[in-house]
Amino acid sequence: MTQTATQGTLAWENHFSQRAGGVGSSVVRDMLKIIRQPGYISLAGGMPPPELFPIDACRAAAERVLTRHGQEAMQYGLTAGYPPLREFVVRWMKRTMDVELAVDNVLITSGGMQGMDLCGRLLLNAGDSILTESPTFLGALQVFAVNQAVCVPIPLDDKGVQIEALEHKLAARPAFMYLIPTFQNPSGVTLSLERRQAVIALAAQYQVPIVEDDPYSHLRFAGKPLPSLLALDARRNQGQELRGNVIYVGSFSKILGPGLRVGWLVAPANVIQRLDVLKQGTDLHASVLAQMIVHEVVRDGEFLPRHVEKLRAALRQRRDAMIAAMERHFPPGLHWVNPNGGMFVWVTLPPSLDGNELLKQALQQKVAFVPGYSFFPAGGGHNTMRLNFSYPLPDVIETGIQRLGQILKGRMTKD
Amino acid sequence: MTQTATQGTLAWENHFSQRAGGVGSSVVRDMLKIIRQPGYISLAGGMPPPELFPIDACRAAAERVLTRHGQEAMQYGLTAGYPPLREFVVRWMKRTMDVELAVDNVLITSGGMQGMDLCGRLLLNAGDSILTESPTFLGALQVFAVNQAVCVPIPLDDKGVQIEALEHKLAARPAFMYLIPTFQNPSGVTLSLERRQAVIALAAQYQVPIVEDDPYSHLRFAGKPLPSLLALDARRNQGQELRGNVIYVGSFSKILGPGLRVGWLVAPANVIQRLDVLKQGTDLHASVLAQMIVHEVVRDGEFLPRHVEKLRAALRQRRDAMIAAMERHFPPGLHWVNPNGGMFVWVTLPPSLDGNELLKQALQQKVAFVPGYSFFPAGGGHNTMRLNFSYPLPDVIETGIQRLGQILKGRMTKD
Repeated sequence: MTQTATQGTLAWENHFSQRAGGVGSSVVRDMLKIIRQPGYISLAGGMPPPELFPIDACRAAAERVLTRHGQEAMQYGLTAGYPPLREFVVRWMKRTMDVELAVDNVLITSGGMQGMDLCGRLLLNAGDSILTESPTFLGALQVFAVNQAVCVPIPLDDKGVQIEALEHKLAARPAFMYLIPTFQNPSGVTLSLERRQAVIALAAQYQVPIVEDDPYSHLRFAGKPLPSLLALDARRNQGQELRGNVIYVGSFSKILGPGLRVGWLVAPANVIQRLDVLKQGTDLHASVLAQMIVHEVVRDGEFLPRHVEKLRAALRQRRDAMIAAMERHFPPGLHWVNPNGGMFVWVTLPPSLDGNELLKQALQQKVAFVPGYSFFPAGGGHNTMRLNFSYPLPDVIETGIQRLGQILKGRMTKD
Repeated sequence: MTQTATQGTLAWENHFSQRAGGVGSSVVRDMLKIIRQPGYISLAGGMPPPELFPIDACRAAAERVLTRHGQEAMQYGLTAGYPPLREFVVRWMKRTMDVELAVDNVLITSGGMQGMDLCGRLLLNAGDSILTESPTFLGALQVFAVNQAVCVPIPLDDKGVQIEALEHKLAARPAFMYLIPTFQNPSGVTLSLERRQAVIALAAQYQVPIVEDDPYSHLRFAGKPLPSLLALDARRNQGQELRGNVIYVGSFSKILGPGLRVGWLVAPANVIQRLDVLKQGTDLHASVLAQMIVHEVVRDGEFLPRHVEKLRAALRQRRDAMIAAMERHFPPGLHWVNPNGGMFVWVTLPPSLDGNELLKQALQQKVAFVPGYSFFPAGGGHNTMRLNFSYPLPDVIETGIQRLGQILKGRMTKD
């Protein structure tokens, strides 16, 4: 015991598990609390444009669901999900990804984050290693830390994860590769077709599963769509049913609304069965009401494509506003990636600047962003930052970037 | 490798983690799929009476929430929960349990099951032991198995868990005690006041945390309410803020509707902080829309007490119907507990009868129940069964018990 208890009251810290002790709170989550205060400009979180949430459609859907199927919406449901929503996911994946699935290849999750947590529970023993892009999604690092895994960083360039470095680390047979091939978070980079094929071949050669996290691919506003790793791998295994080496993590968070907490996993049927059992011991099932509202909104097959089109247009406009503002207000000597989709611009500062120090100054000016170091599984990236353009309106982006530009100019003059 | 892969396609079973391999699907969950077929009478699951779901109130709430706060309902939320709902839980716990809490003692969960999973993640290392009542809640056994813990069974009698046996096992310092003090699932037994005080004293003496699972205490239809372990323990620690040795698991599942997937945890603030971080890496937060609908329904402080009163009356009526039917149709030689609340009647058959064999016959007659053995952490209970009276209407109960009675008479004549 490192702390003594008084009056028989526990010093709880002495009772926390190893994994509970080893996980830190997310910088992004903590910042959410700060930037909810009025007057702050947030270029921090990955929040979808609130003005575009299909609120009227959801309200009408809630009305219909509770009128016609109220008892079902309020009762316990099946762990794998509301059956018509699983069927919709089959159709959606066919239409947008050209993948042939059956219903038993789909498990509805309580959001994409839970999809990753279930993959962790399925595939990780304490101490296992995972290959991840570096930098990578902060939330994934948190999920894998709770699962007591070690993330091995694979460097990225403008075509995505570097194949030689990946192959080098595959020899040690990690538990899986965790990849965000399209509009990677935080870097904005998309894995090229050649490299996608190489990744698929390496997974087969080294017998290492792939967890493909794909929240952003529908948010493409420039360039040509590329096949998902799931689709490429499924083509290798032609046959009646889905086989292969990929677990695909999908989500309605970025294309409908994250407050609903509805996502999905796609995998071979025997893998879905095991994930179902693990989900039973996690939260039984996703909110039936939320699943039924999502289904009621998207069941007309043309709704979601039309809605996604609107989102793309808005994101393109906001991306343009951010890039234009950066060109206007940022001093020379900075580099950034101009993404073809997704929600983020990734900025590299001169080596002498520290993203975290910059953030402190920025918060005084009521602008928030995420310092890049937090996305690196094994350290580094102190002179990077991630700027979000999906949440703020274009004129807010302009003001935020202007404030950041002033701070940057001040610091770069000093140095 | 126990299985070879073809064409570079994984034999996934070889990649599953130890915990994924060690957990079985729930008998109750699997049966859910069968009894959804028409014509079946379910005395199996613990489903609340669907006729009493406050569907109109939820529909009106969804309408108001999406009209007035649509953007908030659809957006990412705080991990600890929708703040006004946390505040409601503080008022509800004060009103119904006489416990003084602050908002930072409350974390909103995606249902009670997730509350238990978070406790597991917080307190369990692989191989740790937990003291549980025997029999106990099947879902908890599943949660703890995923967390790779060993459940040590403590026998129950008609006053609840046996204190001497509990103390005997506390000497080995288990990770925690998991208890359902009120209308225990599956036994229906309620822990007496004297034993509650003894449990609290033992937790302090042996420095072992208590996880108090309390989904049913509001569903009391006879007898006098008893203080929760949380409340008794908090009184030991008088002061400005909640301290003590209890994590309390609460849920709206049984008092509003499980399809919403909204529950809560109560604990000292430093414990809630740690649970918040763990929840970030699990599903970020419960469905904001579901939380806001729950809050909109219950914000008028008189709604939930009135609704719970209706539930109690219906459950009393169904319990009465079940007990009367059992007295009419069951052969002599069976024992059962007549509960003062909750949802279940626990039946002990003659030692020569096997609950699982009985179930097979019952399913042929289209009646389902849960064989009792599945609730015993360390085996036993082959001649027990759990009958649910909350879901079926009284006349359905009558028919179901009549069919079961015929089967029982047939078997007991044979033996």
